[in-house]
This record gives sequence, structure tokens and C-alpha cells, in this order.
Amino acid sequence: MLLTEMNKDQLIAFKNDVQKEYDDFKNQGLSLNMARGKPSSSQLDLAMKMLAAVNSYDADYKASDGTDCRNYGGLDGIIDAKNIFSQMLGVSNDEIIVCGNSSLNIMYDTIAKCIIFGVDGVQKPWKDYEKIKWLCPAPGYDRHFAICESFGIEMITIPLNEDGPDMDMIEKLVAEDDTIKGIWCVPMYSNPTGITYSDETVKRFANLKPAAKDFRIFWDNAYCIHHLTDTPDTLLNILDECKKAGNDDMVYMFASTSKITFAGGGIAVMATSKANVDYIKSLMTVQTIGFDKINQLRHAKFFGDYNGLMKQMDKHREILQPKFEMVLDTLDREIAPLGIGRWHKPRGGYFVSFDTIDGCAKRVCQLCKEAGVVLTGAGATFPYGKDAHDSNIRIAPSFPPVEELELAMKLFVTAVKLATAEKLLESK
Amino acid sequence: MLLTEMNKDQLIAFKNDVQKEYDDFKNQGLSLNMARGKPSSSQLDLAMKMLAAVNSYDADYKASDGTDCRNYGGLDGIIDAKNIFSQMLGVSNDEIIVCGNSSLNIMYDTIAKCIIFGVDGVQKPWKDYEKIKWLCPAPGYDRHFAICESFGIEMITIPLNEDGPDMDMIEKLVAEDDTIKGIWCVPMYSNPTGITYSDETVKRFANLKPAAKDFRIFWDNAYCIHHLTDTPDTLLNILDECKKAGNDDMVYMFASTSKITFAGGGIAVMATSKANVDYIKSLMTVQTIGFDKINQLRHAKFFGDYNGLMKQMDKHREILQPKFEMVLDTLDREIAPLGIGRWHKPRGGYFVSFDTIDGCAKRVCQLCKEAGVVLTGAGATFPYGKDAHDSNIRIAPSFPPVEELELAMKLFVTAVKLATAEKLLESK
Repeated sequence: MLLTEMNKDQLIAFKNDVQKEYDDFKNQGLSLNMARGKPSSSQLDLAMKMLAAVNSYDADYKASDGTDCRNYGGLDGIIDAKNIFSQMLGVSNDEIIVCGNSSLNIMYDTIAKCIIFGVDGVQKPWKDYEKIKWLCPAPGYDRHFAICESFGIEMITIPLNEDGPDMDMIEKLVAEDDTIKGIWCVPMYSNPTGITYSDETVKRFANLKPAAKDFRIFWDNAYCIHHLTDTPDTLLNILDECKKAGNDDMVYMFASTSKITFAGGGIAVMATSKANVDYIKSLMTVQTIGFDKINQLRHAKFFGDYNGLMKQMDKHREILQPKFEMVLDTLDREIAPLGIGRWHKPRGGYFVSFDTIDGCAKRVCQLCKEAGVVLTGAGATFPYGKDAHDSNIRIAPSFPPVEELELAMKLFVTAVKLATAEKLLESK
Repeated sequence: MLLTEMNKDQLIAFKNDVQKEYDDFKNQGLSLNMARGKPSSSQLDLAMKMLAAVNSYDADYKASDGTDCRNYGGLDGIIDAKNIFSQMLGVSNDEIIVCGNSSLNIMYDTIAKCIIFGVDGVQKPWKDYEKIKWLCPAPGYDRHFAICESFGIEMITIPLNEDGPDMDMIEKLVAEDDTIKGIWCVPMYSNPTGITYSDETVKRFANLKPAAKDFRIFWDNAYCIHHLTDTPDTLLNILDECKKAGNDDMVYMFASTSKITFAGGGIAVMATSKANVDYIKSLMTVQTIGFDKINQLRHAKFFGDYNGLMKQMDKHREILQPKFEMVLDTLDREIAPLGIGRWHKPRGGYFVSFDTIDGCAKRVCQLCKEAGVVLTGAGATFPYGKDAHDSNIRIAPSFPPVEELELAMKLFVTAVKLATAEKLLESK
């Protein structure tokens, strides 16, 4: 029976039953964390052999072009790493920069440079505007929004649909307002909703006609090869589409191996037009002599080639897929019949995005927290932490072992039931 | 006989002899590079065992406090790395942040954050000034000056003496002008002159009374343990002195292992007051989830402790000391009797700074280049690349094997003789 169809007495009885279940959980003294999209220990184990890929008992520290990876030099990354990651992103080797351990850091630095220097050395630096604005498809990635907030960039929330952000709205806004300078996109297996932008969405992005010549699409393709099924989503190459549309310089692509090798010790890449790469390198050469080439070589040797990288992803899938299935099965079994939540079944990525009925997300997170399970804070998936509907919760199934996840999900659905019953009773 | 005491005929004869020697070099088709302070291959070999310090065949990837270094988390560095480098810099563990592979990158980012956010969240961001200025003791490190130039910060050249920069000038300038926001210092075995700041100099730094509350000393202690003799220089701890003077927050210290382990794959640290650390972390947490903790652990395990680090430095000294001796012996033998150059005998660091008579440095570098030996460009050791006397040349003996260095130095002194004779003949 749908919860919304229950009368007051039925709801009270339901709530009392669920309250008992919840209290039982509370007495168990759980201590689980599902707040962040962290790889599990067993996923990290998959890359342990990489630690010996550049080892101490031979002279194998040279890139294939002879570069001594132990010494200074080589701003844009070693050829062996470029070969693999340019294929992953579908770009050429002069359209990619292989960096340090964090793609978030590159995104932050890219915006910082736009603020101080401007996007291309020609346009006005963003610091010289009274105010600049940013488009934020939401639910989205809280750390993206935190960057905007830190820099004082005004965020405009854009609804995120099953095929990508609301393009009508985006096209209209960027055409009208030349202080809109950028947009965050996680185009594949979006964080947190798990959707992938349709071909039409990508084409519409590539064909934007922004009033601001220095408008840039921040294309955070963090999950581009993080498939969880035999029928993975596909994503059109936006750099190719931008070139077709004569918007060659409009997109910056980002990715990393944080969820492929080590979240603490992976490598990150940025890809964009050659003109953008050249300009960014001209600034970057003042910032650093170069990134950690040994770790780049370690990665390149461990993967061997792009196929090796994809084989590594299959191993991740083996570990992650059962976790996602368990989350989705639990929701199907416990929540669907009651009609008190919506979610997308992602074919990849790191999250399940759950929408309660309006006004319950904070309460669900609070109930879980009080029973010992920490979720990503309600609201975190929206700019300024403000979910107007108080309904979105990001579930991150990757980190806990499957038996802990099962327990956490049982608590989660109990909390959803309890919070929803409480909410519905308010208006009875 | 001193070159300056020769008459025209003697000088012409001298020049003709030297020209022949030079032409012989030119015909040898040399191709050597002494432009940068790069460790040699044999120095890099010293750290090869570090590559196995965190290995693939045990579960030894945890920091001593249990942190899994393979995963996200831990913004300010792992405890094991902090323990070693806080001792190196003489600070406590809450006064240090262990970062990625490049101290230059931290310095750059620190200034970028001061420009965008201000130094402490209270003072006006530097972007909101019409112009800000920076003090640059020179000869100094070209990459420091490049950062200022890139950010459009006006550089004021400060003479660098045997005991440090001209403190009278610095005290006067910072007291008068509140748009002077910082100063570059390489306080120990200075790049390039090799001098170490005297205790009095450090104390005068710590007791500065800048008009700008957001004036900061950028204390790049890159060579703090890079001794080359049994009687190393000593440097007073500036953070301690700043605390005594009530200027707790005035200094940022930097260092790295670029010239200890791998120049491409070392780790870098920043140390400053706890208040500064807290503020910087509050900004940094938006920039990155964390630095490469596996590489931090690799370093900590390889060194073991601070004594292990110092033992590693002894091995570097064994390789570097003969190179420095050869450079200095060659200068003593070939240049001193002619009276056509000045240099400091450094007790550590990476460079020998050579001053020609006025107006010869560019010519010397050109002559060397045309004969196949690349030196750091003349003028590079001064702000805007402008050496008013055209006399300073940075000699970087570390990279070439000793036999190549010998050849390069023979060419160098020949070029100095030739350029000086040419110069002196101009006024005969």
C-alpha cells in the first residue's frame, strides 16, 4: 500500500512499527560511513602491483622516449601516460596535460588562473568583474560547488534531467548574460544521479553561443570508464563536437585515476584544444617545474596500454556491481511498494541518488547519523547546500564491505520510512 | 699578471692566444648543459631503494597512525612525514603541511591565494590593490622572480651581501610602503651566491615592522641540509625569532626533497605559524582532497627518521663536493691570477655564483653556448632578467659527470678570459 494512501490511523501504526525497527538499529551501536565516494580497501588492493612497476632493482625509470622520470623537466606529462589517457578521453597528445594526483586541484587552479589572468591572455581576468556567475546542474558534486563558493562566484542552479542539464535554460542564460563564465558538468554517470548526457545534450553544449567569449565548460569526466554493466552508457566526445561547431576552445575536460588506482596517489589529466593547452602551459611553467613523472610512469607501466586500463576497470566492476545491486534491490523491495522515493539505476559511476518526498532528506540523514551511519549531508548536492525540496540524498555504496553496506541500507530504508511517516502525519 | 694591468699589445696577444683555445673548443662539438640545478644521475640513484619502500607484496601501505595512504583523506600530510620534516625545519607538527612534489608550486599557490583571498581572511586581497610590490634580494632564484613577473607584482631589487640582503634598505622600505607585500629569501646556501644569512640578519628579519600587516617573508629554505663541508653553515630558526618578536605570522617557510630523493618525484613542505596553517588549510581543503600520501610514506619509510635523512645528505655530499672543488679550483687557478672575476666559496647548496668585470656576463654565456655549453642565461639571477652590471653568471655543477664538468669549466674560463680581453680592449 502506498504510504500516501494511508489514513491517519494506518500511518500511526506504520510509524510505530518502523520506530521500533529504528530503535533496534540505534541500540546496535553502528559506526559506518557512506559520506564520500571512496574506493574500498579491496579496490585499492587491485593496484598494489603498481607499486612495483617502477622498482629499485633495475634502471627502469625512463619513459619510452628516454626521459629520466626521476629528474626535473617535462611540464605536460610523459609520453607513456599521454598515450593511454589521450585515448581514454579521445584527444591527441598535444591536447592533454598529465598532472599530479588530483583533478579537483587542476580544476581549482584553472579557475584561479582565469580569475587572475583571464582564460586566454586576451579576455579580461575574472577578478576585474564586479561579479561573475556559474551554472551548476544539480544535484551535482559538492566539491565543485565549494570551489565556486570559495571564489565568490555566484551559482545558478540548473535542473538536471535524465538526459543531462536543462539545455533550454542554459542556452538562454549564456546567450543573455556575459558574466556567466562557466558550467560544471559530470557528463557520464553523473555525480550523484548516475545519468549520462545524451548525444543531443552534448551537441547542444558544443553549439552554445555564449555572450561571454571566455565562457568555459568544465567537463569533469571523472567516471568515463567506470562502467557497472555489460551495456554501458556512451558519451559523445565534446571536444570533437566543439571543433565541428567552431567552438574549439570552449571546453576543458578533466579526469583522474583516483578511482582506478589509488585515491591518494593517482594521476590526473586535463584535456582541451591545443591553443588552450599552450596558453595553460605558458602559465603553468611559472607554477611548477613539473609533476611527479615517476608516478605517471608507474601508472603507464602498470596499465601497459589502454586495454590494460580497461581490464583494470573490469576488476573494479566485479567489486562494485554487487554493492550497487544490493542498494538498488533494497530500495526496490522496501521503498518502491510504499511510493515514498525516486532514484535512477545507474549503469556506472559511484553513487545512487535518492529523492525522498519533499521535506524529508535532512530528517533521514539525521536519523541515520543518530543510529551511527553517516551519509553525505542532505543539501550537499546543491549549490550553497540548499536543496529547495529537501529531498535529495547521495548514497555512496563503494567504501563499506558488502555486509556493512547491507546493514547501512537496512537502516537507511527504515529511516526513510520513519521520516516520511512523520512528514505525512504533520498534515493529517 | 692582472689583465687590467696589461697594455694594449699585451692584451691583444693574450686575446689571440685565448681565441685559439676557444676555437679549439668550438671544433670539439661539445653538447653540455649546466643551465639548471639538476641532480645528477648518480645522485638520483641514491634514492632508488625508496621505490621499494612501499611495495606490492605486503600490506605496508599504512601510516603509523593507521591511515590507509592509498585512499582519500588527510589534507596536511601523514604523521610519519611530518615527524621528519618538522624536525628538519625546527617546527612542530601543527606548524607544517606536507604537500605534493613541488615547493615552487606551493609558493605560487600561496601567492595566488593571497591575491584572490588575502593573506589571512582579514586583510584586503592583493588583487584589490592598484599595484603591489615585492622585495627581491639579488642575485637570486630566477623562478621566484618569474612568479612575481607573471602575477604583475613589481619587483624591487635588494643587494645581497655576504651575510644576507641589505637589511637597512629592507627595514626602511617595508616601514614606508604598505604596498610591499613580500620578499623572497633563500636564506641558506643562497641560490646562486651560496651565502647563508647571519644570525643578525635573521633577527632583523624577524623584527621587521612592516607598514603592511599582510607583509610576508617567503623563506625558501631549499638547501637547509645540503651541506658540502665538515664545517657547514648554520641558520637561525626564523619562526622562533618571529615568535619572540611578536611577528608570529610573518614568515612562510618552504622546502622539498627535490634534491634529496627525486627532482621529479619528491615531496614538498610548507611551515608557518599554526594560525597561518589553519587559514591555509581552510582554503586548501577546497582546492584538493589531499596530496599523494603514498609518496609521503615512501619517503618516510626510506629515511626512517631525521638521522636517516641526514645520512642520505652525506651521500649527496660525496658526489657533489668533488664537483664544487673542481669548479672552484679551476677558477682559483685560471681566473684568480688574472683578477677578472669574483666568486664565493659556498659550504653547501647547488651553485657557484661568478661575477665577471662589468659588461661581460652575456658575452661569456654567448661564447659558451656557441661552443656547446649552455649556462643559465646571464641576467636570469636578477628581477626582469636585468643585471645592471651584466656581470653575474650562475654555475650549476651538479648535473654533468665530473669529466664533462671539467671540460665545461675549461671552456668557461676560456670564455671569461676572451670576453674580458675583448671588453678591456674596447677602452684601449
